[in-house]
Amino acid sequence: MNSMEKISQFREERNWRQFHNEKDLALSISLEAAELLELFQWKTSEEALKNPERLKEELADVLIYSYMMADNLGFDIDGIITEKLEKNTIKYPVENSKGNKKKYTELSQ
Amino acid sequence: MNSMEKISQFREERNWRQFHNEKDLALSISLEAAELLELFQWKTSEEALKNPERLKEELADVLIYSYMMADNLGFDIDGIITEKLEKNTIKYPVENSKGNKKKYTELSQ
Amino acid sequence: MNSMEKISQFREERNWRQFHNEKDLALSISLEAAELLELFQWKTSEEALKNPERLKEELADVLIYSYMMADNLGFDIDGIITEKLEKNTIKYPVENSKGNKKKYTELSQ
Amino acid sequence: MNSMEKISQFREERNWRQFHNEKDLALSISLEAAELLELFQWKTSEEALKNPERLKEELADVLIYSYMMADNLGFDIDGIITEKLEKNTIKYPVENSKGNKKKYTELSQ
Repeated sequence: MNSMEKISQFREERNWRQFHNEKDLALSISLEAAELLELFQWKTSEEALKNPERLKEELADVLIYSYMMADNLGFDIDGIITEKLEKNTIKYPVENSKGNKKKYTELSQ
Repeated sequence: MNSMEKISQFREERNWRQFHNEKDLALSISLEAAELLELFQWKTSEEALKNPERLKEELADVLIYSYMMADNLGFDIDGIITEKLEKNTIKYPVENSKGNKKKYTELSQ
Repeated sequence: MNSMEKISQFREERNWRQFHNEKDLALSISLEAAELLELFQWKTSEEALKNPERLKEELADVLIYSYMMADNLGFDIDGIITEKLEKNTIKYPVENSKGNKKKYTELSQ
Repeated sequence: MNSMEKISQFREERNWRQFHNEKDLALSISLEAAELLELFQWKTSEEALKNPERLKEELADVLIYSYMMADNLGFDIDGIITEKLEKNTIKYPVENSKGNKKKYTELSQ
């Protein structure tokens, strides 16, 4: 079983799909992203990385809700990632954006 | 090439990995989650779903930064999802949590 | 003592101002906003309003960190609110934006 | 007119109060907090502070939506800030929490 199927099985077994309207899923992705971000509050990256177990769990929560959203909307995970990378490739051509932080921050806004 | 490899190639080609410290990646996941959530502001799920193209793009952005974070930390996407689902299975046993909204919202907090 | 002075005294007494760099304050405002939003997860507004005590606390946390940020940057709270309302008045003239939800959601994006 | 009255007048004139259910206000506070945080993405505090005009606007937006939420719920801004600071004073006594970063980050989680 792949990750999408495992996540689907998890919510089917609990009959939770009925509660998973897309607005609350989007809200949940934001909340899990905040829990991940909280591990970095008042810390440098290095300090935060001393606790990989919590990072793993919170990142997994972001992914699980994101997969549920994709499932609800009939999106294929690899498909939408590939499509978006193709758009980004046009938006940030290698020759303009290579290794320049100033350019990078301006380009990425 | 799988999604992780495509994302890795994208940042290698631009030499952007040097800017991708984990604190700013966590921050970026939060920002992309907010852009996804914005599509639901002042709307019901049904109203928001009329614009699947934007939903697809913003959800892909959340996924792309989450994959970058996993890559930085040496986490396997399917591995951390499976591990977290196993923890959730213990936390929310099927017999206690099946199809009851009140129980669900209390359990999930 | 007004709110700004009370907040300032609170962090002076603990000698915490040294930790309050603006990037972590911005991050903290986001985290507190997420804690407020969490009270609405899987709920309607009406359901969430049954717990006013938590709403009061989480909203206060958003305000406290926002006031700290304003203090760090030398901004006057009433001044920046007034300035922004003036900009919004130009952006959303009463005659174009009055009481029309469709117009409202389009205008406010 | 104080800030609360100005904000109230702004939404009354546009007849927007009808759209401002508390769930969408909480969501909007989160989105504005993300726009403020975005000014710090891939930057140090010092780099971000070079653009005070945008910081002023985004911080004002967080405050405006927070004031609207307080108005909807009948909360007094100074009252809820004072109450929360009193709770924090008990939670973080000066003698335990003064000027120690390790203690601070542990205490504040």
